[in-house]
Amino acid sequence: MGIIVQKFGGTSVGSVERIMNVANRVSQEVLAGNQVVVVVSAMGKTTDELVRLAGEISSNPSKREMDMLLTTGEQVTIALLSLAIKEKGYDAISYTGWQAGIQTEAIHSNARITNIETTKLKASLDEGKIVVVAGFQGATVDGEITTLGRGGSDTTAVAIAAALQADKCDIYTDVTGVFTTDPRYLNTARKLHSVSYDEMLELANLGAGVLHPRAVEFAKNYSMPLEVRSSMENERGTIIEEEVSMEKNLVVRGIAFEDQVTRVTVCGLPNGLRTLSTIFTTLASNGLNVDIIIQGTTDQDTTNISFSVKTADLNDTVRVLEENQDALKFDRIEKEDGLAKVSIVGSGMISNPGVAAEMFKVLADHDIHVKMVSTSEIKVSTVVEKGSMVKAVEALHDAFQLSVVENNEVTV
Amino acid sequence: MGIIVQKFGGTSVGSVERIMNVANRVSQEVLAGNQVVVVVSAMGKTTDELVRLAGEISSNPSKREMDMLLTTGEQVTIALLSLAIKEKGYDAISYTGWQAGIQTEAIHSNARITNIETTKLKASLDEGKIVVVAGFQGATVDGEITTLGRGGSDTTAVAIAAALQADKCDIYTDVTGVFTTDPRYLNTARKLHSVSYDEMLELANLGAGVLHPRAVEFAKNYSMPLEVRSSMENERGTIIEEEVSMEKNLVVRGIAFEDQVTRVTVCGLPNGLRTLSTIFTTLASNGLNVDIIIQGTTDQDTTNISFSVKTADLNDTVRVLEENQDALKFDRIEKEDGLAKVSIVGSGMISNPGVAAEMFKVLADHDIHVKMVSTSEIKVSTVVEKGSMVKAVEALHDAFQLSVVENNEVTV
Repeated sequence: MGIIVQKFGGTSVGSVERIMNVANRVSQEVLAGNQVVVVVSAMGKTTDELVRLAGEISSNPSKREMDMLLTTGEQVTIALLSLAIKEKGYDAISYTGWQAGIQTEAIHSNARITNIETTKLKASLDEGKIVVVAGFQGATVDGEITTLGRGGSDTTAVAIAAALQADKCDIYTDVTGVFTTDPRYLNTARKLHSVSYDEMLELANLGAGVLHPRAVEFAKNYSMPLEVRSSMENERGTIIEEEVSMEKNLVVRGIAFEDQVTRVTVCGLPNGLRTLSTIFTTLASNGLNVDIIIQGTTDQDTTNISFSVKTADLNDTVRVLEENQDALKFDRIEKEDGLAKVSIVGSGMISNPGVAAEMFKVLADHDIHVKMVSTSEIKVSTVVEKGSMVKAVEALHDAFQLSVVENNEVTV
Repeated sequence: MGIIVQKFGGTSVGSVERIMNVANRVSQEVLAGNQVVVVVSAMGKTTDELVRLAGEISSNPSKREMDMLLTTGEQVTIALLSLAIKEKGYDAISYTGWQAGIQTEAIHSNARITNIETTKLKASLDEGKIVVVAGFQGATVDGEITTLGRGGSDTTAVAIAAALQADKCDIYTDVTGVFTTDPRYLNTARKLHSVSYDEMLELANLGAGVLHPRAVEFAKNYSMPLEVRSSMENERGTIIEEEVSMEKNLVVRGIAFEDQVTRVTVCGLPNGLRTLSTIFTTLASNGLNVDIIIQGTTDQDTTNISFSVKTADLNDTVRVLEENQDALKFDRIEKEDGLAKVSIVGSGMISNPGVAAEMFKVLADHDIHVKMVSTSEIKVSTVVEKGSMVKAVEALHDAFQLSVVENNEVTV
């Protein structure tokens, strides 16, 4: 008998019928002899609806009051799911974030979990109850209700699993697992049986945000095995864990990609020690995230810095830079829209220095011009024209043989 | 500068527009130099909708989980109202029941308030904030969320007013005050400027449950003045307080009435010491409330006991009695349906022994047959045929001159 934490997202609990379905899933784990904690999100579009209501009242609502408002969403789900589980003849008890002992920083809308006081959770499990916990929310030690920001329910599930030293944390979602690339774009995309935490972090944008990076980080720190699987279909998903013995011979594990990428180049910056830090501190303090950064020296006194930003952030980025032109001392800004980022990911790359070169060769063979490059130990990212994105993904998926099932991997 | 507690019911906060209207009301009290605590219910039909959802899952839902579910309703309202108040340029902070320090018994769905820990409320008021508290809910010392049952938000408001030693507690509702009788039945019904707590308790069913008896009891115990007034119209309401100096010369203050009354007579009971207690303990332990009770001795050995029950409870009442016929040792049950109760209420009756006689005379003059009578210090109740109910109310309202405005009362 072990402890299993299960997490169901908003779509999986989007109706009474689906909540009954979740109650079934939960019961199965109990029948298998496990103690179960279930973490759930708000039902379907509940959060959007609450945000809309608040928007009718205020264009710039207080974050504290938004936390008070939005946390009701998960509280409704936990009560209904507990009723559904009891209706099936199992004992269940629901806890809000603060009741479940989830303590956070005193920050609204994006707090981090600082501690989980597990006394209540453990006592309820020991009484034979299925414990249903509201995801996405916690409270400060002073009893202020907080939320965890994007991916919050995933983080709640992993944090509880870690605190309870659970055997496993299952993330139920609307996809069946993590794929070698997005199956909506490439029909040879293959579901992975397992990936490492680091690979998952780099693949995070595959499969429509299937698992939030914060939750993966958390799981990695506590070596908590995760399984991403479908709440609708009864098939094995993708396991995320430290040792990926079965597929370790595979250098590249997946191809991640995204369009809506823009390149901004700030020209004629002073070639000084603090230029890089000044420019990106300015952007960060205005809430603007940049991705790939390239610095190229043109002459001794001045330098150009290029970086990629999401297309939606382009106007704000240019505005912030222009407002700070006096302090940053640049000549002009150049921008190029209509770009995309294509990345290969795999922890085997570390010991395979030729992988990046192979990638560039494949792209060149397909007449795809690479505009920017960025490399990490387990990822090589390239910025290409948006029109070449899918062609690049197909070529790389094929070249790195990602649609081939390994010998020692079981097909499902 | 004083402390004012305001309570707004579900209809008054039923839409974003109405919430903005409530924010206006609240702001006016602050402009007048007062510290304000606002207690609100769930928006409009929110509670009904949540009950419906739970009903789709379970026909007999756990009371604990229903409390978890329903308390989200007020939490949505407090967040939205706080946003609306802030939008008007005033500072506001919302608190759930547990955050506001409302401690209750460890009973779900119908808990009593045991204590209010006011540290947070006072600190927020002293910081110049308008405090918005979720009505109807509290928590046990162990952090279990509870609800206060029917009239819960009224009780929350009065309890907070008492704990903060507020100057006043205003109950905003969809009627303009307490009337001499139900204005929907009698167009000469007149709004009372003030009534005593006891009179309010006896008149509780006038004006469609305008104020819950529990809240009146609470206010009486703490001598907290209440004002029942309209959230829509800007006119003076009815003040409920101990001293009703302005109208003390009026013996009868109001006429209460209700239909859906049934008389049950249990015939041939043993004429023993414990007969009364046995029969009504049996009914009470089955959750059945009786109203007027009359015992008439027929001979030395047996007795008949008549009582009135709500028509909706008639079948259950008869069933419970029949199931316990062996223990209760009665011969048979007689029942009479289609009855109504008409009562005159007024604290001046205590010193006016002729009032009951006057009532019976008025009814007899109008050919209204009285089937049962019950008297208290400030109320005389009669059970009559349903068809005579309105005629009885009209006759009594006229005879006791309730539509006449007293000399020293200001018309509004």
